[in-house]
Amino acid sequence: MPNLQRMCRNGFRGVARGAIPSFTNVNNAAIITGAPPSVHGLSGNYFYNQDTGEEEMMNSSRYLRAPTILAEAASAGRKVGIVTAKEKLRDILSNAAVVHGAIAISSETYKADGVSPGRNPEVERALGLERPEIYSGDASIFVLKAGAELLEKGLSDFLYLSTTDFIQHKFEPEAPEAITFYEALDVQLGRILEAGALVGITADHGMNAKQRPDGSPEVVYLEEVLENFGFPGCRVILPITDPYVLHHGALGSFAIIHVPASHNPEEIARRLRLLNGVTEVYGRDLATLKLELPADRIGDLAVLSGRNVVLGKNPRAHDLKAVSSGLRSHGGRYEEMVPFIFSERLSDDYHSLAQGDTRNFDVFDFTINGLRK
Amino acid sequence: MPNLQRMCRNGFRGVARGAIPSFTNVNNAAIITGAPPSVHGLSGNYFYNQDTGEEEMMNSSRYLRAPTILAEAASAGRKVGIVTAKEKLRDILSNAAVVHGAIAISSETYKADGVSPGRNPEVERALGLERPEIYSGDASIFVLKAGAELLEKGLSDFLYLSTTDFIQHKFEPEAPEAITFYEALDVQLGRILEAGALVGITADHGMNAKQRPDGSPEVVYLEEVLENFGFPGCRVILPITDPYVLHHGALGSFAIIHVPASHNPEEIARRLRLLNGVTEVYGRDLATLKLELPADRIGDLAVLSGRNVVLGKNPRAHDLKAVSSGLRSHGGRYEEMVPFIFSERLSDDYHSLAQGDTRNFDVFDFTINGLRK
Repeated sequence: MPNLQRMCRNGFRGVARGAIPSFTNVNNAAIITGAPPSVHGLSGNYFYNQDTGEEEMMNSSRYLRAPTILAEAASAGRKVGIVTAKEKLRDILSNAAVVHGAIAISSETYKADGVSPGRNPEVERALGLERPEIYSGDASIFVLKAGAELLEKGLSDFLYLSTTDFIQHKFEPEAPEAITFYEALDVQLGRILEAGALVGITADHGMNAKQRPDGSPEVVYLEEVLENFGFPGCRVILPITDPYVLHHGALGSFAIIHVPASHNPEEIARRLRLLNGVTEVYGRDLATLKLELPADRIGDLAVLSGRNVVLGKNPRAHDLKAVSSGLRSHGGRYEEMVPFIFSERLSDDYHSLAQGDTRNFDVFDFTINGLRK
Repeated sequence: MPNLQRMCRNGFRGVARGAIPSFTNVNNAAIITGAPPSVHGLSGNYFYNQDTGEEEMMNSSRYLRAPTILAEAASAGRKVGIVTAKEKLRDILSNAAVVHGAIAISSETYKADGVSPGRNPEVERALGLERPEIYSGDASIFVLKAGAELLEKGLSDFLYLSTTDFIQHKFEPEAPEAITFYEALDVQLGRILEAGALVGITADHGMNAKQRPDGSPEVVYLEEVLENFGFPGCRVILPITDPYVLHHGALGSFAIIHVPASHNPEEIARRLRLLNGVTEVYGRDLATLKLELPADRIGDLAVLSGRNVVLGKNPRAHDLKAVSSGLRSHGGRYEEMVPFIFSERLSDDYHSLAQGDTRNFDVFDFTINGLRK
């Protein structure tokens, strides 16, 4: 990855702390608002809505409680371009910005013929790309390719490009498929740098293998465990749940538990903390304070699991065939730290800030305000 | 670092989880015993001995409760060489092994004239090196240099080389001093590889800046806090404490609290968890279970702090002049993950193991049993 290497050498390479749970929607929302989940309102990809009594995908910008940097930039006259791999993210990220003229495209719904309704038909036609398969590395390469095209054609001068993690879920870092993928990403990164962009790179979350040596997933099934402990009727929510089950089979390292009034959450927490593989258990108050989660969109308990362990509901609820080739996933503390890379050196002030607890959702601040030119 | 790069390319590069607290003695002891602190017995560099009522450095092998791989190898006829930077580590690591003929040298006490008592005068004379300053990068470069000499001269065929982290405490990763240091380490690594050794590399802990943007240390003074909370008389132990105060001023991200009988530890834990910068608080039982600590060598509470925060006793107890150029330290969760690098590809079995929760103290197992030749 010669272009990324040049960024690391000539610019800045550090590590930032993401938001917990270390999931896609939570962290993308954090990055475009510059704020933690307690402020922006997204607590996962999926949650139990206590107002309606329904479990819902958090796949819409109506869940966002904070203004987005993208909308502010568009409103201030910047030509904002937003490209995501997954369509689920496009709406969350771009809804407010498109009102002010931002271009918003997803790999998943891109149509080169420009007839897909509600998107940007002229722009999509102008780009002349091909729509990739969503379960592929191409879905991410498309994102950077579209970004490069938007810059080169002068259609955008302020970009947010959000790739997807299909390759990272499916292949270990040094697998040939991963290396080919990163090589292709780097080519597009080179185009973006060549176009003169200041570039900041971070991630929504890390990724770890969550499996036994035989390749089968290492799962703690919380509903089953709680029943065996004598706490029936708990509602276990897996906020990694999204429409893209092939990535992870809805198995991640973070779970929310809604406890019926008949049980004491603190007693359940004490029992769960003793389980192998469970690393942290928080009541609602501490989850709000320590994990910066929105109190009204979590449950009575938040549970995190170890580097190689995921949390499930019960064996019947998960299609393990989707992860039969091995399970790599995220959501917990061990996927919290992510790269934080910039194309230019940091100014003295931001260099000092970088000696503290920088967050992935500081990436726009650093890119816009913190780079030497 | 061309030699390290070649290892990463031709061998294996991954990440392993260290032992908590992420301190030197705890993790070096783990590595040479292949076991966590609950088994090997070292809970820090420093502890309160409840049997004697004294606070003590854990700077002696008499605290070790497990046999060492080094002693077993020496006893099985391997020519074992042990080189440490700090003298404090030499005894812990080598005491059992020297009985079986192992060579044990530290940068700190090395004497080229071969007259330093109780060491290996003939060997030290044969090596013909110069004793470096302990507060320097040379103290670490010496370790690899001595290792290379021992191999090249046929004096050892089984080595444990443990550097010190003075440079990492004092300079950020991309400072010129750090780069010069790593370049010099890499030259010695090249000699060791050239001599035909199978090499495994890991670390005892990570390192983070623990300071405010103005460079002053970000400290939570626990004794002061507990007094203000109305819990006087608690004994706060900082297990990072060692004779080498210039490194860190005895400020790290892990503390032990002994609570007098008049207070309820669980109540103190609840209060401490609400503090900014405090990330985890465990009672003795959970510290034993989740942090794998020896129950009789910790206190009533174990406290961990954030990526940019250290724990102190009270402002009078620390010489902040020692860290006036900035504080970089370790001890907590954010310094738990470390590199795990080998000179050869892993066998299929060990490659599968590496897809789980590998530990830094598996490094001997991987190097001895897990590499393809």
